[in-house]
Amino acid sequence: MGTDLYCHHHSLFADAMTETALLYLQLADKIATAIQQGIIAPGSKLLSVRDCARQRKLSINTVTAAYRLLEDKGLIEARPKSGYFVRTQLPEPTQPLKPSRADERQADTLNAFIEAILSHQDQPDYVDFGLACPKGKAFYPTERLSRLTAGILRKQSDLVAKYALPPGSLTLRQQIAQRLIQLGVSVSADDLILTHGVLDALNLAIRAVTKPGATVIVETPTYFNLYPLLEALGVNWLEITTHPLTGMDLDELEATLQQTPIAAIITIPTVHNPLGFTMSRENKARLAKMANQYQVPVIEDAQHADLQFVNPPEPLLKAYDEGGWVMTSASYTKTLAPDFRIGWIAPGRFHESIRKLKFLTSVAESSLLSEAIAQFLENGGYERHLRNLRRLYSMQINHIRSLIAQYFPAGTRASQPTGGFILWLELPDNINSLELARRALAEHIVCIPGLLYSTSQRYQNCLRLTCCFEMSEKYIQGLKRLGEIACELAN
Amino acid sequence: MGTDLYCHHHSLFADAMTETALLYLQLADKIATAIQQGIIAPGSKLLSVRDCARQRKLSINTVTAAYRLLEDKGLIEARPKSGYFVRTQLPEPTQPLKPSRADERQADTLNAFIEAILSHQDQPDYVDFGLACPKGKAFYPTERLSRLTAGILRKQSDLVAKYALPPGSLTLRQQIAQRLIQLGVSVSADDLILTHGVLDALNLAIRAVTKPGATVIVETPTYFNLYPLLEALGVNWLEITTHPLTGMDLDELEATLQQTPIAAIITIPTVHNPLGFTMSRENKARLAKMANQYQVPVIEDAQHADLQFVNPPEPLLKAYDEGGWVMTSASYTKTLAPDFRIGWIAPGRFHESIRKLKFLTSVAESSLLSEAIAQFLENGGYERHLRNLRRLYSMQINHIRSLIAQYFPAGTRASQPTGGFILWLELPDNINSLELARRALAEHIVCIPGLLYSTSQRYQNCLRLTCCFEMSEKYIQGLKRLGEIACELAN
Repeated sequence: MGTDLYCHHHSLFADAMTETALLYLQLADKIATAIQQGIIAPGSKLLSVRDCARQRKLSINTVTAAYRLLEDKGLIEARPKSGYFVRTQLPEPTQPLKPSRADERQADTLNAFIEAILSHQDQPDYVDFGLACPKGKAFYPTERLSRLTAGILRKQSDLVAKYALPPGSLTLRQQIAQRLIQLGVSVSADDLILTHGVLDALNLAIRAVTKPGATVIVETPTYFNLYPLLEALGVNWLEITTHPLTGMDLDELEATLQQTPIAAIITIPTVHNPLGFTMSRENKARLAKMANQYQVPVIEDAQHADLQFVNPPEPLLKAYDEGGWVMTSASYTKTLAPDFRIGWIAPGRFHESIRKLKFLTSVAESSLLSEAIAQFLENGGYERHLRNLRRLYSMQINHIRSLIAQYFPAGTRASQPTGGFILWLELPDNINSLELARRALAEHIVCIPGLLYSTSQRYQNCLRLTCCFEMSEKYIQGLKRLGEIACELAN
Repeated sequence: MGTDLYCHHHSLFADAMTETALLYLQLADKIATAIQQGIIAPGSKLLSVRDCARQRKLSINTVTAAYRLLEDKGLIEARPKSGYFVRTQLPEPTQPLKPSRADERQADTLNAFIEAILSHQDQPDYVDFGLACPKGKAFYPTERLSRLTAGILRKQSDLVAKYALPPGSLTLRQQIAQRLIQLGVSVSADDLILTHGVLDALNLAIRAVTKPGATVIVETPTYFNLYPLLEALGVNWLEITTHPLTGMDLDELEATLQQTPIAAIITIPTVHNPLGFTMSRENKARLAKMANQYQVPVIEDAQHADLQFVNPPEPLLKAYDEGGWVMTSASYTKTLAPDFRIGWIAPGRFHESIRKLKFLTSVAESSLLSEAIAQFLENGGYERHLRNLRRLYSMQINHIRSLIAQYFPAGTRASQPTGGFILWLELPDNINSLELARRALAEHIVCIPGLLYSTSQRYQNCLRLTCCFEMSEKYIQGLKRLGEIACELAN
């Protein structure tokens, strides 16, 4: 779907550049003015390329190029199989609340809710805005990866009979090191350790630098499974105010580092989950500098950094790390194959402890799966695949934002993520999103209430929606229904 | 090699039964008497089947059947490509020392030695008696498993694009549950959780029932990586005297349970690593009863239970567990594919905590790899494969025991394992096996000194040798050289 659309546009656009350069710029300018003056309303459908060309006596290529330019400017958006629409101007979330240190979390209620969500994971009749893992073959190069894997089984079946040891497949580590250059990170294959996805990396990193009773710093809101994970390790946490657009409040962080012994800082500075921001380069540089100055390990989750919408992508926090205090990890579960669960960590100065801990907790990762991913990265299909994914997610997010603007209560705000497929909604203050999510679940619509992303009773009116499903009428109706329930709760 | 030999014998033996029943019994009896009277010396080679048949004017079938009978009686052994040899009567290890509670372990020295061993893991010119993982394709059904895996990739490539969740592949859990019946364990697929090998299961089990500062009971000697694993979790341990032939001293265990709060008992009651014993049914029943009576979780490692030499196999400890206090785990890394690293745990009453902990630490195991193993188990090749492995290991162990009797210092004792491929040697008291292992490593021979298997300075004169390599002149020479170094150290 979106993938083909993109390739198609792209070649048309190249032709248009030479033939109709002036005409398409003039057309784009006219439409842009009409949108800005409100002559064409947000959410309305533009003429089809064919109709517009006929009406204005222009070539198809000219109109296509004009629409494409408007799309790049963020004024209109293509929706698969539907045409072009004027983008909705949905406001982004407000300033964060000041953190409260009160820690009475309705843990049981929330955990029960997480269990309820997970238990519906595999049921195809559910409308799932919950799971942050792309659903469906459209998002993965499954056929190609399967062929590569089968090829390895045929040609190097010895691998299956070998005992893998940390740090894991050299070929894959070399590929990862090479790819990290784009993200500003200069490491060698020897600096990397393969892990069982990012979660394993996160566990290893936390265990390597904390003891039970230690305190770590987390962003708020953050990945909801981080809290039970820390609890299981007996590690305490402090939530640092995190701005929806700029990230962790570094002044507050520095004040905390000066006052309290902190064992580690856990952060998602690039395409944050759930907020969607990417921290500025200046702030990343400052955070890395603070890590070195205060000698506090920083655990950086770079899971969605490959899915940044900007090109070239923003550098990782690790790019600014001079003393090896930043540990960065990511995986291929969200872009290549969720079943393969191969991740990596660049543990900086904590390399030895993490290598040993990996050996003591699960030995190593499968060489077969690692080599398959390495071959996929090496043969050049990955960059093209990522370009398609970024475009698909960006379109899908815009589509869903416009549906939210249409169906959700007035006053609803939604993040404009810098990459990935996660939306963060701020509903009017009087809406309890746990109640909303409960009612939705009863109607087979899954979404995750904001309360889960903090342990200090915040974000009661917030909601996380993932946009990594194959868009269909069922999903559009699901979102509409979710908006209706929200409207009912608002009254 | 050994595998083909076995099949060949087997059919010949069936013919012989009908044709030459009396003659072969007479021949076997004569040879047995000669061996018992010392007329044929331990370690000496018997006439080849062909030569014996010619000399005695018997058919090939008759001689083969006689040799086979002697082999079954443990008097002679077949060595691949070499013929039949009179088995060596090597004494088994003595009574264990009383445990000392002194806990000054030369941790750094030993850890450095482990690192040195691991760093030589992949070097083909090393003679490796260290790694407890079969080396080489002879020990794995690699071709068949690879074909099955490739078939799944072709027919069910959807699996690759799906997010696996605990407890993991239902098909595999069903197969495991069915196989466990043979080992006396009655569980359903729902009672099982898939893990990243046994080590992951062990970590999950320990974490589920301990907090930092807790004390667990371990056998001595035991799996050497257990100590750093417990250290990393901040858990303390007590070593309970473990007899080389009968296992953990249950009176001592009970006295300890009465005196000290114990968070868990960690045990390998079936084919112990490194001692090789299998605890008697009576003792297993008593241990399971104590777990229920004192309400103390028991973590049972059943890794080598599928490789028991007796038929039918002895039941697991879990078979005697009435209250769900026993957690049992094993994997397919040592019998099917070390690279696939799929293990399982039957966590009894700790099911919920382990399921959650698995999700929080590494989500789940690959469905592709799990389904491949499930298909291998289902299609019936596994039992035949295990029969071949047991026979191969049993032969190889006997061969190596006879080489030890030949080349090692007088007074050396060696375990007669009840399954698997691990030998435990007790050298004369004045031999320091760490020094022996160090000198051997310098000559590219890897073996593991006994000191590593305890944290109370015991087993300084002991050595663990694994017998899971493809036998060759290089290995025979390596063992001879190891014996020579031991003799040098003995003087």
